[in-house]
Amino acid sequence: MAAADKRLLANAIRALAMDAVQAANSGHPGMPMGMADVATILWTEYLKHDPADPAWHDRDRFVLSAGHGSMLLYALLHLTGYERPTIEDIRGFRQLGSPCAGHPENFLLAGVEATTGPLGQGFGMAVGMAIAERHLNAVFGDELVDHRTWTIAGDGDLMEGINHEAAGLAGHLGLGRLIAFWDDNKITIDGATALSTSEDIAARYAAYGWHVVRCDGHDFADIRRAIDEALADPRPSLVACRTIIGWGAPNKQGTSATHGAALGAEEVAAARKQLVWDSAPFDIPAPILSAWRSAGGRGAEAHEAWRARLAASPRRDELVRRMEGRLPADTGLEAWLDRLAEAPQKIATRKASELALEAINAAVPETLGGSADLTGSNNTKTKTQAPLTKEDYSGRYIYFGIREFGMAAALNGMALHGGVIPYGGTFLVFSDYCRPAIRLAALQQAPAIFVMTHDSIGLGEDGPTHQPVEHLTSLRLIPNLAVHRPADAVETAECWALALARRDGPSLLALTRQNLPQLRSERSAENLCARGAYRLRAAAAPRRAVLIATGSEVEVAVAVADALEAQGIGADVVSMPCWSLFDAQDEAYRSDLLPADLLKVSIEAGTTLGWERYVGPGGLAVGLDRFGASAPAEDLFRRFGFTAEAIAPRVLAALDSRRSG
Amino acid sequence: MAAADKRLLANAIRALAMDAVQAANSGHPGMPMGMADVATILWTEYLKHDPADPAWHDRDRFVLSAGHGSMLLYALLHLTGYERPTIEDIRGFRQLGSPCAGHPENFLLAGVEATTGPLGQGFGMAVGMAIAERHLNAVFGDELVDHRTWTIAGDGDLMEGINHEAAGLAGHLGLGRLIAFWDDNKITIDGATALSTSEDIAARYAAYGWHVVRCDGHDFADIRRAIDEALADPRPSLVACRTIIGWGAPNKQGTSATHGAALGAEEVAAARKQLVWDSAPFDIPAPILSAWRSAGGRGAEAHEAWRARLAASPRRDELVRRMEGRLPADTGLEAWLDRLAEAPQKIATRKASELALEAINAAVPETLGGSADLTGSNNTKTKTQAPLTKEDYSGRYIYFGIREFGMAAALNGMALHGGVIPYGGTFLVFSDYCRPAIRLAALQQAPAIFVMTHDSIGLGEDGPTHQPVEHLTSLRLIPNLAVHRPADAVETAECWALALARRDGPSLLALTRQNLPQLRSERSAENLCARGAYRLRAAAAPRRAVLIATGSEVEVAVAVADALEAQGIGADVVSMPCWSLFDAQDEAYRSDLLPADLLKVSIEAGTTLGWERYVGPGGLAVGLDRFGASAPAEDLFRRFGFTAEAIAPRVLAALDSRRSG
Repeated sequence: MAAADKRLLANAIRALAMDAVQAANSGHPGMPMGMADVATILWTEYLKHDPADPAWHDRDRFVLSAGHGSMLLYALLHLTGYERPTIEDIRGFRQLGSPCAGHPENFLLAGVEATTGPLGQGFGMAVGMAIAERHLNAVFGDELVDHRTWTIAGDGDLMEGINHEAAGLAGHLGLGRLIAFWDDNKITIDGATALSTSEDIAARYAAYGWHVVRCDGHDFADIRRAIDEALADPRPSLVACRTIIGWGAPNKQGTSATHGAALGAEEVAAARKQLVWDSAPFDIPAPILSAWRSAGGRGAEAHEAWRARLAASPRRDELVRRMEGRLPADTGLEAWLDRLAEAPQKIATRKASELALEAINAAVPETLGGSADLTGSNNTKTKTQAPLTKEDYSGRYIYFGIREFGMAAALNGMALHGGVIPYGGTFLVFSDYCRPAIRLAALQQAPAIFVMTHDSIGLGEDGPTHQPVEHLTSLRLIPNLAVHRPADAVETAECWALALARRDGPSLLALTRQNLPQLRSERSAENLCARGAYRLRAAAAPRRAVLIATGSEVEVAVAVADALEAQGIGADVVSMPCWSLFDAQDEAYRSDLLPADLLKVSIEAGTTLGWERYVGPGGLAVGLDRFGASAPAEDLFRRFGFTAEAIAPRVLAALDSRRSG
Repeated sequence: MAAADKRLLANAIRALAMDAVQAANSGHPGMPMGMADVATILWTEYLKHDPADPAWHDRDRFVLSAGHGSMLLYALLHLTGYERPTIEDIRGFRQLGSPCAGHPENFLLAGVEATTGPLGQGFGMAVGMAIAERHLNAVFGDELVDHRTWTIAGDGDLMEGINHEAAGLAGHLGLGRLIAFWDDNKITIDGATALSTSEDIAARYAAYGWHVVRCDGHDFADIRRAIDEALADPRPSLVACRTIIGWGAPNKQGTSATHGAALGAEEVAAARKQLVWDSAPFDIPAPILSAWRSAGGRGAEAHEAWRARLAASPRRDELVRRMEGRLPADTGLEAWLDRLAEAPQKIATRKASELALEAINAAVPETLGGSADLTGSNNTKTKTQAPLTKEDYSGRYIYFGIREFGMAAALNGMALHGGVIPYGGTFLVFSDYCRPAIRLAALQQAPAIFVMTHDSIGLGEDGPTHQPVEHLTSLRLIPNLAVHRPADAVETAECWALALARRDGPSLLALTRQNLPQLRSERSAENLCARGAYRLRAAAAPRRAVLIATGSEVEVAVAVADALEAQGIGADVVSMPCWSLFDAQDEAYRSDLLPADLLKVSIEAGTTLGWERYVGPGGLAVGLDRFGASAPAEDLFRRFGFTAEAIAPRVLAALDSRRSG
């Protein structure tokens, strides 16, 4: 197709973008108008996809990291023939009920590979997708897995710290199947990029081991040349596209005025004139729509050929099983739980996690683990895992480096890609470093698994910078994130079973550095952690109190109960590894466990805010409402009152004050 | 001093490091042993400081970004003659009560400029200190402010995303007074850096506009040459020091075995032999200690000369006032509050913040503001503020770029440097991006001010990626962070007054995008927000309920109260801008505001977890326990039930169930 015709196609994107933003009187027209030419070449000539089947396993992945330019993606999906968004959906851009949200949401539209908008994370997820692709390629071969990952990143994406982590990882792993377009328009919200940055981005990417190529983002031949160069190079490629933001809006283009606001009726009219675009808003002339749809049909043949190869492949069932996220019948955990019942272990839950993973990784070939340079501390690597390297992508362990946020975003990308169950480790306190990605996993329902060890002052000497205090509850606050804090080796295995089985959101395991006794030696047929909380031990003496604890403090709760029982005061011990699962139980279960009329006491080595939900106003929340300190763990537990000696008297006092109150 | 003698001095650091770690059986000997030679040259020949007065305003700042190497810093402070740590303190390394914590804590030891350990942040704070120095230099001149900022960063610091943001900012601002040593030892916790990274760090820093120089980190002459080059270059400098981790431990040096664990008695003995270090643990031979102390005395003369210049300067009182953190008598806010009482404003609280800042910035010359590329959205720039640029450091506004974490760490560094009151803006949802720095501000008691706008679903169309839901409470969980969510222009001014006055920790203002009515038109002599919560309106009809709300939902609470009063049901409205300040009030005040026997209802457009603290188990928490959606703000408030029409019936039902219950 000639350049003039391609421009007509690109202008269809521009028209939809400016019209939708104008109708909503809200949104970002500048980026779609600036990148329309590049996107047109990519989507009509290079991208391998099939609008008739957005879930085709071997499709290329396209991630709009600059998610504020969402209208670019909605226009591309509509024009190439995806079932949604319809033109009515696009008319409803940014309105309640439309799948065309302000930023692309993967759970609203097929074809949106990832929820993007928080800058830099789309780029990071693209790296994860590219890792998953190469890994599955190594496992299943070229005939079944052989696709690319494309992403569009703006200046904001490339200023965010995460792009440094993600690009460094991609360069190290030599992810040549990853091609990132940089929308080099020299404009940010505040004005010219020169206001805040002077760096040579191309040189920086070259320093990471990337291939860098430049092009004029409004010259179709030049765009093709650059993409062809990128395809030919074995390294990941950064295609720097020199563009004009808001291209086509004669008075505002090239300025930040086009970035994040409607152009205004007058400028939209002027742009129509400039683009020689006569049709009404949301009306795409039939020849142009037809050309787009025909381009959208390009992938059908390749898809059909792939289907035939898949049908003929002995690996078919396994690939489909993995891509559809179905676990093998045996995850190895039942046998491991049998062994724990036979031979109880006094070990740290991080070690228990390692041992659970030994069982899992031997039985579940799709797990792909790693750590942000804390392999020996997070206990994330098992014997069966060889490293995934540039030379051998079949490995199942990734040395992520000191890149917590990059790791978490990559885990999200792998989870979204499918075919693998990704997990990654760091210290719980550094969940703050990856918190934006943990949130995005929860929002976009990505089943990534975060392994967070050293989960309290129990880590000891490293001191308050490394001791999580507020983190457990701050993570519990994130909707759709399952936060598990198991109390022993059995609970750790049960929580791993829950994390593996979860398909509609992320899970986080908070694990100890220090050893803990195994509190459950009877083999339970039921996964008791699945209810979020359960009665670990019932009162022997007449019941006066319920002690609720999580993780390492369950051991303490048991000791407190012992002390109380010794005085004839009965106390249940409730282990509550996961608040959100407990909150989802029915009222009968919840009130049976936590009866309204009894004193309830929570014990957790973290901030008490939030525990009022379970202990109530007359209850007692034993916690730590301050930062920790540097000392051996046992000294800290004593210093901060996490011992039976310190807590039992407080429980007795609370019981007394209830009697007198 | 000859090279051999310098080695003896450096070996004193090595001995203290390995002995302290050995005694604690915990810690990181490798970094101090590897960087001892570089640190010796820096601290004995270049660093401008005076151990007799660690608070000397014009001292050089030294930030150990690789904070796990804390023994390096403790050794340097002790050897150069700081009052603390004593040798006894060092013997107590990592034990309860010793100021020699696992990672350096600025609140435990004078001479520790910043709490470090969470990787990359020390580097980011150093950038902030270097900005503060250049700004104060521009204001007060060379004779009063003329010092450098030095930092030591490890591979971990340089892999973390924040180093990208901080280095990009430093390069852009041309901070030639900043010199960063890179401990290039090719080792991380997991093993060789080659396991996880292949980047050319020197080329990357050159791409940021830094000067890069290499040296052999164990060759004293070469170290001097590199530092001299760095001093001579007008750009910020990265001094890449090729070192051997654990230098001196004959069997373990150069390996990750020396990174984070005691060397073991045998290897310590072998190292003693290798280093020809015969003295007992913690014993520094007198000639060596004397040489160190004499080097520590180097700065006294410069300090005395500075004192004389300060005494003679007409700017003396102003510099001292600012460095000591005393506000001017008039912050401009009282007059602004007068005006608000005269002419109430219906404006967004982000706009109210801008107007408060107009008053403040005209009256308080030490404020230094900025935004992470959301200047027009955060309303952080006032008319009086010119940009702080490479060409003119006297400006009081910083275009931080799309670098939220880098900005937050820089604010911390500025606050720690002193002489300025730093504030910076982004969207509240992106508090997650800077959360590790917000936490570190709270831990190290740095009075940075975080201006976080677009504080709920009220931001509308940008959708759930941009809508904070869990953020308010997740921030309230951080100990020593004051989280303010003002309800109108008056409260916004009051919260700014609190933030300005706070010296022992950070403050965060959560502000709306959308307009809010001014709820208080009477001029209050007292700052009502100082109590964290107050009765905005008392019930007219017999009181049956207390409605507690924050920020934009206070308006909703007033409407709910109106609806209830119309039915003869009295309801107080309590505005609660700051939980932690309210929690600090006495019991009488708290129970007067929230009486135990009344129904309490919280209204906040965020997750309800945590509100149980105030509403109790029979209470009603109106909130949003899910992610938001993309639509205009009013539609979202209706959709999610934040209207009087939706809430009043829920209050009535709760009152009924109490009656029947």
